[in-house]
Amino acid sequence: MKDKVLDIAKRRGFIWGPSPNIYSGGVSGFYDWGPLGKLLKNKVESIIRKTFSSYNFWEVECPTIMPKSVWEASGHYENFTDPITKCLKCKLTYRADDLIKELYPKEKVDGLNEEQLTKLIEKKQIKCPKCKSSLSDVNTYNLMMKTTVGSNTEAFLRPETATTTYLLYPEYYRFFRTKLPFGVFQIGKAYRNEISPRQHVLRTREFTQAEAQLFILPDQEKDFDKFKEIEKEKLPLMPYGKTRKITSLKQAISKKLIKKEAYAYCIYIAYEIAKQLFDESKIRLRQHNPKEMSHYADDAWDLEIETERFGWFEVCGIHDRTGYDLKRHSEFARIKLEKPANILEIAFGLERPTYSLLETAFKEDKIRSWLQFPLGLSPIDVAIFPLVKKDKLPEKAKEVFTQVERDFVAIYDEAGSIGKMYRRMDEIGTTLTCTIDHQTLKDNTVTLREITSMQQIRVKVEDLNDIIKKILTKELEFKKAGKLI
Amino acid sequence: MKDKVLDIAKRRGFIWGPSPNIYSGGVSGFYDWGPLGKLLKNKVESIIRKTFSSYNFWEVECPTIMPKSVWEASGHYENFTDPITKCLKCKLTYRADDLIKELYPKEKVDGLNEEQLTKLIEKKQIKCPKCKSSLSDVNTYNLMMKTTVGSNTEAFLRPETATTTYLLYPEYYRFFRTKLPFGVFQIGKAYRNEISPRQHVLRTREFTQAEAQLFILPDQEKDFDKFKEIEKEKLPLMPYGKTRKITSLKQAISKKLIKKEAYAYCIYIAYEIAKQLFDESKIRLRQHNPKEMSHYADDAWDLEIETERFGWFEVCGIHDRTGYDLKRHSEFARIKLEKPANILEIAFGLERPTYSLLETAFKEDKIRSWLQFPLGLSPIDVAIFPLVKKDKLPEKAKEVFTQVERDFVAIYDEAGSIGKMYRRMDEIGTTLTCTIDHQTLKDNTVTLREITSMQQIRVKVEDLNDIIKKILTKELEFKKAGKLI
Repeated sequence: MKDKVLDIAKRRGFIWGPSPNIYSGGVSGFYDWGPLGKLLKNKVESIIRKTFSSYNFWEVECPTIMPKSVWEASGHYENFTDPITKCLKCKLTYRADDLIKELYPKEKVDGLNEEQLTKLIEKKQIKCPKCKSSLSDVNTYNLMMKTTVGSNTEAFLRPETATTTYLLYPEYYRFFRTKLPFGVFQIGKAYRNEISPRQHVLRTREFTQAEAQLFILPDQEKDFDKFKEIEKEKLPLMPYGKTRKITSLKQAISKKLIKKEAYAYCIYIAYEIAKQLFDESKIRLRQHNPKEMSHYADDAWDLEIETERFGWFEVCGIHDRTGYDLKRHSEFARIKLEKPANILEIAFGLERPTYSLLETAFKEDKIRSWLQFPLGLSPIDVAIFPLVKKDKLPEKAKEVFTQVERDFVAIYDEAGSIGKMYRRMDEIGTTLTCTIDHQTLKDNTVTLREITSMQQIRVKVEDLNDIIKKILTKELEFKKAGKLI
Repeated sequence: MKDKVLDIAKRRGFIWGPSPNIYSGGVSGFYDWGPLGKLLKNKVESIIRKTFSSYNFWEVECPTIMPKSVWEASGHYENFTDPITKCLKCKLTYRADDLIKELYPKEKVDGLNEEQLTKLIEKKQIKCPKCKSSLSDVNTYNLMMKTTVGSNTEAFLRPETATTTYLLYPEYYRFFRTKLPFGVFQIGKAYRNEISPRQHVLRTREFTQAEAQLFILPDQEKDFDKFKEIEKEKLPLMPYGKTRKITSLKQAISKKLIKKEAYAYCIYIAYEIAKQLFDESKIRLRQHNPKEMSHYADDAWDLEIETERFGWFEVCGIHDRTGYDLKRHSEFARIKLEKPANILEIAFGLERPTYSLLETAFKEDKIRSWLQFPLGLSPIDVAIFPLVKKDKLPEKAKEVFTQVERDFVAIYDEAGSIGKMYRRMDEIGTTLTCTIDHQTLKDNTVTLREITSMQQIRVKVEDLNDIIKKILTKELEFKKAGKLI
């Protein structure tokens, strides 16, 4: 099944790559989103944007390139590194800790520094897995991609959108008329020069993040007025060292599984987004080991999704970053900030949930294979076909297409038999198909078919957009939207 | 007036920068889009995306980083350069041709090579404008930003989205079932290391492009079936050496102002987009001097907008690129392409029209200054206010807000007197404001006010979303949408 999904992804124009494919098969860690994948990714992006906005976060857009000083302040310049070792003969590069773990799974390597890793490689006499030659000493390797701006300004591509968002704090403070808390978010590219990226689009060198920040004063965090609106909501929480358990946020706070109401509110927003994409049984919120968290973090939870191919994996991190960031930037930039705030953060990646949607959508039975996306999330909402390519049916169908296309992602097709066109739409997961036939010319009704059940109903053209909208937003069940035929 | 616009842009959260501002005032050529600017930019993006899609172009997303070989093939590695000279003492860098032109406007410098420019600087005894010291010989300076992928793969940030889109031709060819012509587009970041970027957001080092390509076979270009649908449309054409004149596309083809029907179709799409943003009197389509075009281009027209601050400037280029690109890439990548196509291209920048919208929106009279955006293009569509902050009006207003927010960009405000809230909305150009008062509690009607005329009507809450939609899409005139009060 797994390979069928990657095969469909490639064959049907969801994900292509590594890119640039025509140049020797591309550079690993870079992918292209084909027409259907991009429509799907746009829908995920739009859900995140709409949800953040509805919780009163405001979108901004910052540069993807920042000078070195910013990354010195953020800590990325010093700490955003991996330990690497190189084959002295064939020059292949390996991530040292990963290499040791692969060969000696029981060896404890987490937290070892370069010197300790080098000694371990010597002790175990580890050689290059490919050519069996000796390996170099372990060095640190910065994951940020470097560039130059102007003729000599050292700069780096951002490894996260977040830092660039923080830097506008003085501007926000005025924009929000000095009233805290307030929220902003950014959706954009980030870059990490992974040593040897694998796992398809789940770990790439260029990717899209959607990160929201709540800027909040310390005394507002524990008694947060908006918490009351969501405290009864139940979430699949997995506090550190415990199992996944559906818990209300009120309980979570009173049992001190989560320390702050405002932070619980951020966890809830992440969950709200995930629920629109995935079945609740496939979602969990997993707390990090408090001992392994960064020194500045007060708490960290990952929102994880269960997939067949890669198991549980993170699609979003929710971080209690405290006042660390604004403090550092104000120190390094030597400016005094009015009311420096704490930052609570919701950090989504876009490629991971998009891939995951594609994987969970895949279905097959004896007759056909199809993609069954959650309602409203199919790359294409509705396809319009004329039953035959004559008798003015294509003309009428194009008219209907123009009407439908105003409100939905629609496609017009007339190439091949009706059965063939249905199969093609099933394979790419188009929710509804609408056929124009001879009866349409008489009474202005069309056949609407849904992908999941293959059932068909007859509806009036003048009601079509309204009916499609209600079906896609779950206001109306397909079977009840017209006369079953 | 000009400075008032830049002042509003900054003060009211449209455009901030150079960024990162808190670090010594930022790096020139990089800007932040604040909350209102980002909403505006998103609306421009959405119009371009919708229009391209409605003409059956399909969106894709490619990496912003590509290895050196790609840029060797595209010609950017060799040719995408500016001639520069450095002050030998203070080390300031100048674009050599611009410097000469500034000091000697009559001197012919276009097309001179580095050696010729160096000689001209010597002959005219040009010194550093700042410290009056001598200048270095003229060198070429590549405008692309370089980086490294992995430990040693030389790569560059793309200077345009276009090249990355072309490279997927074999994938498109299969996706579109080997039927040409077909269209794709990409919206994303591009990077140019301008020497000394000025002109605010009109010339930056990082910017967003929205570029569409029509892949077409040579024999399809002159007799293009979709041309019939648009041939009667009239455009403000300014063929090389002539003045701006409203001309139908049919005329333009028959008089050979435009050579190919498919190319005229692309020019029309660009105009269709511009018409949704600007008054037609402010738009012109200017043909390039045929002698100065790149050797591979068969024709090139710029869509220009007239602004007060910067005069006429380009917001979109429409290029007949012939078969050059696919030929080069197939040679350099050493692969044989099936049916290599010609490329017709529509290349929009996003920042320029967005800035321009802001500038043309600015209005003032004796009473107030306001931003009058075209209907549907305001950053915020509608603001919801309770008349007073008591008597359960805020509760009711929040209810109305939740209803409106489902379909529009809405804002809720209750801070200050109603007059103050109106003025705040006028200043940022919010099209409609909706006030909840005591009568609302009795008969469920609200006051709707439009920014342009400051007129008010009374409408039912249950009709509100529908009425707002019809006003914003120009289906319904404001005055006729309810009872004038």
